[in-house]
Amino acid sequence: MSALPPGSVIGVLGGGQLGRMLAEAAGRLGFDGHVFSDRADSPAGRVAAKEFVAPYDDAAAARAFAAGCDVVTFEFENVPAATAAAAAERAPVRPGPRALDVAQDRVREKEFARACGAETATFAPVGSKADIADGLGRVGAPAILKSRREGYDGKGQAKVETGADVHAAWRAIGETPAILEAFAAFAFEVSLVAARGFDGSLAFYDLVENDHAGGVLRETRAPARDLDSLTPPARAVMTTALEKLDYVGVLAIEFFVMPDGRLLVNEFAPRVHNSGHWTQDATACGQFEQHIRAVAGWPLGDPARTADAVMTNLFGDDVLDAPRLAADPANRVHVYGKRPLREGRKTGHVTRVG
Amino acid sequence: MSALPPGSVIGVLGGGQLGRMLAEAAGRLGFDGHVFSDRADSPAGRVAAKEFVAPYDDAAAARAFAAGCDVVTFEFENVPAATAAAAAERAPVRPGPRALDVAQDRVREKEFARACGAETATFAPVGSKADIADGLGRVGAPAILKSRREGYDGKGQAKVETGADVHAAWRAIGETPAILEAFAAFAFEVSLVAARGFDGSLAFYDLVENDHAGGVLRETRAPARDLDSLTPPARAVMTTALEKLDYVGVLAIEFFVMPDGRLLVNEFAPRVHNSGHWTQDATACGQFEQHIRAVAGWPLGDPARTADAVMTNLFGDDVLDAPRLAADPANRVHVYGKRPLREGRKTGHVTRVG
Repeated sequence: MSALPPGSVIGVLGGGQLGRMLAEAAGRLGFDGHVFSDRADSPAGRVAAKEFVAPYDDAAAARAFAAGCDVVTFEFENVPAATAAAAAERAPVRPGPRALDVAQDRVREKEFARACGAETATFAPVGSKADIADGLGRVGAPAILKSRREGYDGKGQAKVETGADVHAAWRAIGETPAILEAFAAFAFEVSLVAARGFDGSLAFYDLVENDHAGGVLRETRAPARDLDSLTPPARAVMTTALEKLDYVGVLAIEFFVMPDGRLLVNEFAPRVHNSGHWTQDATACGQFEQHIRAVAGWPLGDPARTADAVMTNLFGDDVLDAPRLAADPANRVHVYGKRPLREGRKTGHVTRVG
Repeated sequence: MSALPPGSVIGVLGGGQLGRMLAEAAGRLGFDGHVFSDRADSPAGRVAAKEFVAPYDDAAAARAFAAGCDVVTFEFENVPAATAAAAAERAPVRPGPRALDVAQDRVREKEFARACGAETATFAPVGSKADIADGLGRVGAPAILKSRREGYDGKGQAKVETGADVHAAWRAIGETPAILEAFAAFAFEVSLVAARGFDGSLAFYDLVENDHAGGVLRETRAPARDLDSLTPPARAVMTTALEKLDYVGVLAIEFFVMPDGRLLVNEFAPRVHNSGHWTQDATACGQFEQHIRAVAGWPLGDPARTADAVMTNLFGDDVLDAPRLAADPANRVHVYGKRPLREGRKTGHVTRVG
């Protein structure tokens, strides 16, 4: 493929804030962004040239959507396989189905991480309540039971400390195929955001350090501590993963850093990632433009960090404070246009630069 | 007025590239951008939450448009006065009618510049063919005849060197009220882009140097040469102009720099300006976000230049070269989504940073 010319249409499956910032980046490069959202008047739809509204499992709608696009990408990894396949009948879908396949299933994700030469927490697949007690013996207590599929921001998870927790945990995750993971007593969490172009070129952002609370990212600091020792092993895993998946676009990998400095892969996100938002304001080519460049077959942009940065998520009506935050010249304020401003929901972020 | 909260609607009169970049900036701050354009599927409309299509002189449509907005601004200074007045019945219009009044009439513009303590080229108002010959005696030859209203990018202008040119010049500008200006034998051209907030605070970008060809801006270099000597007089004119107009938003002033270092005001543009595009990529708060902040009553952002920058306009199908331009890490590529890519029309720009 040669590079898509300006005026081409980039389709985004998903109408949330990641889709919005992808559509904005597409627009700056002269593309038309089309958004497929399960709700009308979505944050992404409101900055896109067109918004298609249909359930995400409506394969026929996805096929019709893709027919108007030159390339299709997505903002969330739980795009139903049938939807992605239907879109792929009409336009290239980037990254491709293998990335979705790996990221949608926590067992396959762990297996893939190991195939990439990475370590992960000890884990056991769980198909029934009996598997939990059994698995607990192998992975050790405390452990975390997570649904294999559709986990997001800490949902579908339950802690298992003893056999007495098994029943409640199985109920809590909805009695669905799951994975039991050893609790990783990590020192801190880091993530790596990188891109692979259509031509196979790679661009790595700096490794960053993340604070989560309640399973939700609160703050990202760029760069992470111990950058020199952590970067080579993290990039090695990323490079192998990007190449094994014949990946095109931005990929994020979350790692636990153990007290002895070992990295355990926690999660792959085959998309732009909350821990990469700082790149908008402290690199020449932020992750959203980078992803658009990749899926459009353009050369990748420069990912070098131009300043230290701290990205803090805003939740619910935190964003009503945006004018005050904007008064501080170190702050770059981003608001997502969500309605309503529901408590606990990510509604914006602010990146402090320098 | 207190600051408009995210979720408010910012209306933009004008569907071109300036409106597009204003709508993008509004979106990043969590506003909905609504665009009023005289053609459907406009560059700005394609990144806005809503596009209203009507002729720019349709006051009733402007009134209906403004009824859905919390504030209305514009991307071009030739908004008909009746349209601005109709919009102002339903929502604040910023900057206000006085700025339009000054910028729409070249004679009033020159008079206003002088009232701000600035020098201008010698000029004479022209109401008839006879006034041209008469004026030529006063301003000296060569002179330039320009229509008083609706001039843009060198249109509506004709050179007058001798009395023999009078008839052709009068025909060339359409036999319309005009101004005869002495030709300013300037050394170079600079412009100053600045903003005044709703609270009266001021933010100045660095003075920049511009190259025009055929009346159209080709390249802007930030900063201008002789910055230390030129900045104080340019800022003095800007400050007086912003305050006299009780201005809210971004204002640009173009100056001629004479061989002896004197500044002559050439033009006021009561809007974001092509010579301010470099600020997107070489300041913390570019002119588009700055304008949105001002009209929304937010605090102004930091206008300090973070690197040297050279902005080059792209015309017609130059933008098909965007993927190649984007391969150079010093380049920041911006494409406007114009259709068709008509020759000579501004279709994008590239800013080289550092």
